[in-house]
Amino acid sequence: MPDRPHQALPITRQDIENAHKAISAYVQHTPARRSITLSKMLGAEIWLKFENLQFTGAYKERGALHRLLQLSPEQKQRGVIAMSAGNHAQGVAYHASRLGIPATIVMPKATPAIKVEGTRVHGARIILHGDIFEEAAAFAARMAEDEQLTFIHPFDDPAVIAGQGTIAIEYLADVPDLDCLILPIGGGGMISGMSIYAHAINPDIDIVGVQAELYPSMRDRMRGELSPCGGSTLAEGIAVKTPGEITSKLVSALVDDIVLVDEARLESAVSLLLNIEKTVVEGAGAAGLAAVLAYPERFRGRKLGLVLTGGNIDTRLLADILYRELAREGRLGRIRVELADQPGQLATLSKLIADQGANVIEVVHQRRFSALPAKGAYVVIELETRGREHLDTLITVLRENGMRVDDLAPDIV
Amino acid sequence: MPDRPHQALPITRQDIENAHKAISAYVQHTPARRSITLSKMLGAEIWLKFENLQFTGAYKERGALHRLLQLSPEQKQRGVIAMSAGNHAQGVAYHASRLGIPATIVMPKATPAIKVEGTRVHGARIILHGDIFEEAAAFAARMAEDEQLTFIHPFDDPAVIAGQGTIAIEYLADVPDLDCLILPIGGGGMISGMSIYAHAINPDIDIVGVQAELYPSMRDRMRGELSPCGGSTLAEGIAVKTPGEITSKLVSALVDDIVLVDEARLESAVSLLLNIEKTVVEGAGAAGLAAVLAYPERFRGRKLGLVLTGGNIDTRLLADILYRELAREGRLGRIRVELADQPGQLATLSKLIADQGANVIEVVHQRRFSALPAKGAYVVIELETRGREHLDTLITVLRENGMRVDDLAPDIV
Repeated sequence: MPDRPHQALPITRQDIENAHKAISAYVQHTPARRSITLSKMLGAEIWLKFENLQFTGAYKERGALHRLLQLSPEQKQRGVIAMSAGNHAQGVAYHASRLGIPATIVMPKATPAIKVEGTRVHGARIILHGDIFEEAAAFAARMAEDEQLTFIHPFDDPAVIAGQGTIAIEYLADVPDLDCLILPIGGGGMISGMSIYAHAINPDIDIVGVQAELYPSMRDRMRGELSPCGGSTLAEGIAVKTPGEITSKLVSALVDDIVLVDEARLESAVSLLLNIEKTVVEGAGAAGLAAVLAYPERFRGRKLGLVLTGGNIDTRLLADILYRELAREGRLGRIRVELADQPGQLATLSKLIADQGANVIEVVHQRRFSALPAKGAYVVIELETRGREHLDTLITVLRENGMRVDDLAPDIV
Repeated sequence: MPDRPHQALPITRQDIENAHKAISAYVQHTPARRSITLSKMLGAEIWLKFENLQFTGAYKERGALHRLLQLSPEQKQRGVIAMSAGNHAQGVAYHASRLGIPATIVMPKATPAIKVEGTRVHGARIILHGDIFEEAAAFAARMAEDEQLTFIHPFDDPAVIAGQGTIAIEYLADVPDLDCLILPIGGGGMISGMSIYAHAINPDIDIVGVQAELYPSMRDRMRGELSPCGGSTLAEGIAVKTPGEITSKLVSALVDDIVLVDEARLESAVSLLLNIEKTVVEGAGAAGLAAVLAYPERFRGRKLGLVLTGGNIDTRLLADILYRELAREGRLGRIRVELADQPGQLATLSKLIADQGANVIEVVHQRRFSALPAKGAYVVIELETRGREHLDTLITVLRENGMRVDDLAPDIV
């Protein structure tokens, strides 16, 4: 349990309430819903706040808008600049355009066109620069100075933090007796703002941060450790290598614990939210649920407040996750069957599969480059079954009919 | 414009208000939200009511629950039976179990295990019988008689119709000045109930029904025509060959128009709702939006009320739709390139693709069984691009480098 010198903190409950007064007419008061099914499944009372239903698909616009409202008339006229390929970019672009403030967004050159267009559509000038994040950031900083633009930081700014904190005002008004908040941490803006308000309302509330295993930067900072950060994570919205200075102080003062989640848990969480709650959540937005999946004992029997922070997930990524989840459940299988090189072998195999009620999706018949004698052949079959048990039964039946079968599913999963 | 003898109709506004009093504590008052983006895109003010957020994922539980509440104590004790492999089954099973009423659900033998389990989990006895829908229905009717169970019809029952009509009470309370309702029609229960209430509140409201092109049964009934019904539709929730008797009378009296939507429009609607509204909707639930996509002129400038009737879509189907939509947008491409049989050809091709910033997903190198001279070979490449324009540019570049390229995307789309 950290000690909590509220008085000494650079942002107060009043700041967050002021932010709420300033922005609430222009952002969604998103719904908070209890998930009956997830609660039953995980043995805790699970509440979800749907920040993925903000207009730009993520909570980031709260902080961005609040920061924009702090600008002087001269600053507004000169314009703002931000560096982001994600939700912060869209939040700044959308509200700047709405307020008639010129906005420039710098993105790394490799940013997918879909994200570039998703930001450009809100009326911002987009500049693609740099091969990596750090180059784009350095460029944006130089450009801010050269063109006298105000740089809108994605997290390490008191006005941004206060804006993100407004999520807690709505959440605790709608569900007053939450006893634990489980919140994703990237740079730390959202958890900082929400913690200040939540602790002011209820000093006993337990606040747990969540980071992706591949990017444990804030957790390391709290422990004085330094693990390598990097790699491709589904939760790219919280893949931040260097936490903020202000946010690090706030997290240290207010957050009880930071847990890490792996990629498989993030995928399962995205998939569960889609299948059970019928809602589209990006990897970072599912981190809270991934944490409950990873540490059910830690949270059992408690009233948990999760925030679905955003819903901007790439379509292909989402489709891939759905397929992989089917493979995990055994509803999509991939088997390799060894066939003797005789007429009728494939027909026999096909009939056995059909008799079991499985549905063939793809067949690759491979003859050369196998480790089998020249007369043998492999068939790799992708098929749809009713689940793990059905797939296992099918494999057993094929083996009982004298076929050598390898289950390739573990390769996928 | 049909004439509207409200007085003569078998169900009244009062019946629907009574149904609402009876069920409203046990079903969700689902949110109604205006879609800013879809409104802008389609030139109309588009409202969505999220019945996919009911506990069982669909509106069907309203009618099922209302019917269950009409049972006498003896009927409750003997139990109920329903025939459905879909949302009606889950609605009956869930509320019967909640009320302590034994429920039997008959499903065709081929029903996917996921749907069987999704119903069994609510505590119903499941009986798999019959190869087709009609056999299962006949069996359920016999069984109802033999075991003295009350048969709960999915649509052609006044209590069910009144239950579905409660959607209109909530919708018009939340968005009073809708001037057009666009509602999917399967058997006709929902549109019948909603129309009775909506017309009582606002006799000028325009009510448009939507059916899948493959199952135009209610439209045919209204026109005295008889088209063939059949085939595999994404909107299996409204794939009904024979509309109800009661519902046909109500639709004839109250519905202004019935439009048909094709499969491509249904797929696009599911995909748009997922990408823009971050919500998961099954094919039938997206039919209203599909109608606006199909007939934008018919609806331009009006204030439209759509109902997202359900969200129970098979995971593989959803993933397939997402991939197909990417193919339509040119973000997933499939090209066939003719290579001379010389070392280095594939390397040259790969480099050209990489230089254009496209991402190779799958390569099939095909040599035998081609129409090319023995020394030639085809490579089929699946790749990810930034969109149609990017894909076209890539193809042009390959051709400029002397390669013969076929765009296979039209085969997919």
